[in-house]
Amino acid sequence: MMLKNIELKETGVVILDQTQLPNREVYKELQTADEMRFAITELQVRGAPAIGIFAGYALYFLAKGLAKNGAAEDFFPELEKTADFLGSARPTAVNLRWALSRCIASAKKAGSRDMALLALEHESRLIHEEDKAMCRAISRHGLPFVTEGGGILTHCNAGPIATSEYGTGLGSIFLAKEEGINFRVYCDETRPLLQGARLTAFELHRAGIDTTLICDNMASYAMKSGLISAVFAGCDRVAANGDTANKIGTSGAAIIAKHYGIPFYVFCPSSTIDKSISSGKEIVIEQRGGEEIAEKFFKERIAPAGIKFLNPAFDVTDNSLITAIVTEKGVVRPPYAF
Amino acid sequence: MMLKNIELKETGVVILDQTQLPNREVYKELQTADEMRFAITELQVRGAPAIGIFAGYALYFLAKGLAKNGAAEDFFPELEKTADFLGSARPTAVNLRWALSRCIASAKKAGSRDMALLALEHESRLIHEEDKAMCRAISRHGLPFVTEGGGILTHCNAGPIATSEYGTGLGSIFLAKEEGINFRVYCDETRPLLQGARLTAFELHRAGIDTTLICDNMASYAMKSGLISAVFAGCDRVAANGDTANKIGTSGAAIIAKHYGIPFYVFCPSSTIDKSISSGKEIVIEQRGGEEIAEKFFKERIAPAGIKFLNPAFDVTDNSLITAIVTEKGVVRPPYAF
Repeated sequence: MMLKNIELKETGVVILDQTQLPNREVYKELQTADEMRFAITELQVRGAPAIGIFAGYALYFLAKGLAKNGAAEDFFPELEKTADFLGSARPTAVNLRWALSRCIASAKKAGSRDMALLALEHESRLIHEEDKAMCRAISRHGLPFVTEGGGILTHCNAGPIATSEYGTGLGSIFLAKEEGINFRVYCDETRPLLQGARLTAFELHRAGIDTTLICDNMASYAMKSGLISAVFAGCDRVAANGDTANKIGTSGAAIIAKHYGIPFYVFCPSSTIDKSISSGKEIVIEQRGGEEIAEKFFKERIAPAGIKFLNPAFDVTDNSLITAIVTEKGVVRPPYAF
Repeated sequence: MMLKNIELKETGVVILDQTQLPNREVYKELQTADEMRFAITELQVRGAPAIGIFAGYALYFLAKGLAKNGAAEDFFPELEKTADFLGSARPTAVNLRWALSRCIASAKKAGSRDMALLALEHESRLIHEEDKAMCRAISRHGLPFVTEGGGILTHCNAGPIATSEYGTGLGSIFLAKEEGINFRVYCDETRPLLQGARLTAFELHRAGIDTTLICDNMASYAMKSGLISAVFAGCDRVAANGDTANKIGTSGAAIIAKHYGIPFYVFCPSSTIDKSISSGKEIVIEQRGGEEIAEKFFKERIAPAGIKFLNPAFDVTDNSLITAIVTEKGVVRPPYAF
């Protein structure tokens, strides 16, 4: 059974607390705006689509409270305040504000308070359903790349926890499992934040998939040993020429795959393709602090005091290294010209 | 000033306790056989050459005690017992038993107890001096590969701590610093055991070298960004055709370097070249447990229970990826035929 990372209930919005993974599978029912905003800032809910889905449900649930406890004329101003409050939780989360704006627009269009509540429920459920449908479509298009007896190498996390149901980069893997295909998955642990170890390995293992964790630097060994038949990655942004920004380490995995003649597939919603940038050179890479490398997760600091760190969050994989890009619309192969 | 990882003193053998790095630079003076054996088993002293040097000094120091406190006729049997005791500390450490055998042979040849003590001191100091001379020669041959304004990427640790003075893979870097060349070093942290973060970064920073730590999966980003002019690696075994076994992740770094047109250099004593194996295919790779990936160093387990792990300690870099192999005898370039 697929895990439910976000669920709307009569009494609150239930989330899988991602900060407790992989050691504890804890579900929390959130009722107040403070709890909901905290869940976003503290990354209890993370992944762009998941944040959008959660924000929609959160706003609807809080709107019910506003309707029950407040005066009718206060409803719309209070609803907008609530949306602003939730929307300020993570400044760079585009999906968060996109989902909230969409719900607010729908509520306003509805006119009355009661109709607005219906519109909010409908819109928030629609955001969720649309994401599920998109993930399913991506997964269906990528299914042929999971071959009987094969081994898939994954990098970082693009699974159900970050989206809904199937996920993007992992969707074809879950679908292949459901369809009875026999295969193994090797997960890059994905330093420094270990999303592959903490999230991807958790999701795959929970779905009964044959899951092996490796350190990022073991990909070459695994490929050379004949264990890997394809590499699957999600992505954060695709340029018009197919250059793809994704979690740091993706481009190295793609180069090594090419060296060994192993296909490298990128999975994403078509909305990730940014036609306004002609190539990956225009993508600015976020640089993060060194404590993430040297201290986070560790009992004791792993590096001497005083050294420098380079900690880019993403890298750009050259289009020449990508066998195909899989979106909900289908499979695109080189030469890429979006 | 170079650090002294092993020093023979009148009152004992002083070691830099490697288990306390990189957070504490602790030197311990060891006096008893138990303490000395413990230092080897617990990896307070590690690195094949360093273990050999330490064992020689340890045996000499303990022999002085035997001569002072025991009967003359017990000296040689007790000396051999002591060597066996030290030699059993790490079953796979070839250098450990090589150094002890060499010292024992020298002592026996000397005849009398007093002459044996002199022979032991001479032989143990000679082992140390020979290693220093070899490291210096390797470093001198590799020096031209450290270019003014360049950036060197290192993987794992092949520095002074594991050897003597300059080290093998890092030797040219220390020498370049002494010669006033300006350059930067980027250290792969080297998962799962983090030797790059804990040891290499410590050694380089302590020598005043501009040191930047990266995760292994950031090498592609660093190379693409123009930060890296050469990759330096040590090695554990070289086949007759130049295929090279080294710490896991080395082959991936070499493939990525080749992709970006960056030279990849291997540094080792010529004794590391094993002419009895024709290619890297004959090198058996040690497989280690998953807890090293999922638990060691971490506050909390980073991966879900029940998954599998692949944890090869080494990988083999194909000869076609190696720009040159640097030994104490000089620089060898392809085609390799040892």
